[in-house]
Amino acid sequence: MFENSSKTNLEKLGEFGLIKKLTENYTPKNPDLIKGIGDDAAILKTNSEKLQVISTDLMVENINFDLAYTPLKHLGYKAVVSNISDIYAMNATPKFITISVALSSKYTLEAMEEFYTGIYLACEKYDIDIIGGDTNTSPQGLTISITVIGEVSPDKYVTRSGCKPNDLLCVTGDLGGAYMGHQLMEREKRVFLANPEMQPDLEGYDYIVGRQLKPEARKDVIDLLSELSVKPTSMIDISDGLASELKHLALESNVGFNIYEEKLPVDTQTLEMASEFNMDATMCALNGGEDFELLFTIDQADFEKIKSNMDITVIGYATEQANICQLITPAGNQFDIKAQGWN
Amino acid sequence: MFENSSKTNLEKLGEFGLIKKLTENYTPKNPDLIKGIGDDAAILKTNSEKLQVISTDLMVENINFDLAYTPLKHLGYKAVVSNISDIYAMNATPKFITISVALSSKYTLEAMEEFYTGIYLACEKYDIDIIGGDTNTSPQGLTISITVIGEVSPDKYVTRSGCKPNDLLCVTGDLGGAYMGHQLMEREKRVFLANPEMQPDLEGYDYIVGRQLKPEARKDVIDLLSELSVKPTSMIDISDGLASELKHLALESNVGFNIYEEKLPVDTQTLEMASEFNMDATMCALNGGEDFELLFTIDQADFEKIKSNMDITVIGYATEQANICQLITPAGNQFDIKAQGWN
Repeated sequence: MFENSSKTNLEKLGEFGLIKKLTENYTPKNPDLIKGIGDDAAILKTNSEKLQVISTDLMVENINFDLAYTPLKHLGYKAVVSNISDIYAMNATPKFITISVALSSKYTLEAMEEFYTGIYLACEKYDIDIIGGDTNTSPQGLTISITVIGEVSPDKYVTRSGCKPNDLLCVTGDLGGAYMGHQLMEREKRVFLANPEMQPDLEGYDYIVGRQLKPEARKDVIDLLSELSVKPTSMIDISDGLASELKHLALESNVGFNIYEEKLPVDTQTLEMASEFNMDATMCALNGGEDFELLFTIDQADFEKIKSNMDITVIGYATEQANICQLITPAGNQFDIKAQGWN
Repeated sequence: MFENSSKTNLEKLGEFGLIKKLTENYTPKNPDLIKGIGDDAAILKTNSEKLQVISTDLMVENINFDLAYTPLKHLGYKAVVSNISDIYAMNATPKFITISVALSSKYTLEAMEEFYTGIYLACEKYDIDIIGGDTNTSPQGLTISITVIGEVSPDKYVTRSGCKPNDLLCVTGDLGGAYMGHQLMEREKRVFLANPEMQPDLEGYDYIVGRQLKPEARKDVIDLLSELSVKPTSMIDISDGLASELKHLALESNVGFNIYEEKLPVDTQTLEMASEFNMDATMCALNGGEDFELLFTIDQADFEKIKSNMDITVIGYATEQANICQLITPAGNQFDIKAQGWN
């Protein structure tokens, strides 16, 4: 799994040696960072005209990721992306992150360097600085904890709670791809375990594999909404699946939602893979998760501003029926939407 | 281990049900918190005259804590204290924390409520607000990740790197107690495992047991130094042991240290327990860790201001010999100080 030929045992380095190795070539870019990695805490200068936005996530091996088919570089990249996605979902800009890892003795220095390469790539792309973290031993596997610090103007932030009845429900990109990519890789893993001489067959499915392994956060959409002078009335990012996020918006805004099945944006590869697995593509789009697209509501008056954008789809609208989320099929049937984690 | 009689399986609640249960009675106190738990991210107003200070820690079951003798309430309390201790070590004030936990299916709602009771107690005592977090499943045990956000005036913060040769090295409280408390509880655990009818014998050792199970952060010392108008030239908190922290100060300040064995502050219970275990009390004080006392250096001109304070001990001084840390025995012998994690 780890392709580097040389392997350095982490015990030889010691905790402080490891941190030094992983961060020695890293130079923070943001002039507001007064003290970064290497002290008890980081010190930041804050912009007095902005509010600060803070989010945190914990990822656990074999629960949130499977290293059998996730290269460590991709894992590092995805760990950053999935976290900053929460900051964009507040209509804010991520600036700094802390990264903590607990790792078992199976990890080598070279493996951790791979992981950090992915982290650095994401930080570069999204213009973020690493300001600290913690390294620890774990009895089993890898656990990653990231905290992101961002900023937003007081008049621009968007929570989950501002949606009003009749607001339009919009989603960016397409849905269910990351989930179908996951299903595909799980299948190929089973094939490989049964017969280690088989090579994984991912041909023709690069898009959904990429959605699972190297997702992006929708910074571009946040920038676009700002250009278009559209401030969503509520917003959330899709990490647990459309159905679950919809319930969050409904609960916090005290509204309901009707969404139209035929409006759900689903990529061709997702459709094909769903059909190969005998799965319902709508269910994948509703419950798949990890797409890191944005789900938001806008005032109807803003519809003209966004309607010609290919990357934003209006999939339904908010109703007055608090917490009732319904899917309307092309035939006009209505179903209550259910979601995991909402018992 | 969990004393509550009713047990609620976490799967029944779902992730969002659990977070709601654990936080439903929690009301943040700080008016600068614009949006707390319950959105993609928290939103804070920052004080434009202050800098922001951020630190993070990861604690792993059976590596950093043993639930065989650590009540979950104490664990929650200690998790907060050990984190905010890093903020005090910057001469700053902690204001907000995020808490993430990954937990296996052995944990019940009642167990998590115990854990959060300890967290809330520490937040109350140190005047901190919880602003967010994450809850996740773990294949094994409990992992806790906490990030603390604090603030400090630009002219007051203290890093590890400002110490000059001849500065005096000071330590607060006493050392080695948490470690000896740990040794004692490990022994009683072994006795209990060998014969479950034996009750743990901790009598006469309440101080060192308390040092291990319910440590405090030295907010009082930070307040005192401010009253005395003493700004340390460098500072760190003692989490990995005096020896390791000394090496951090030496490395970052490019100095060395001479410390006097007979000056090391060690409590009577620590001495007695060390003698019972046939251990060298000096080694316990040097390498014990988890005392969460502050280690700092001051200009010699400030000695008069602190000399009569019972809670601060001058244990040595900084030298020009970069990275050479030496222990001087009462007989005048000198030994190089070694520390774990520094290979």
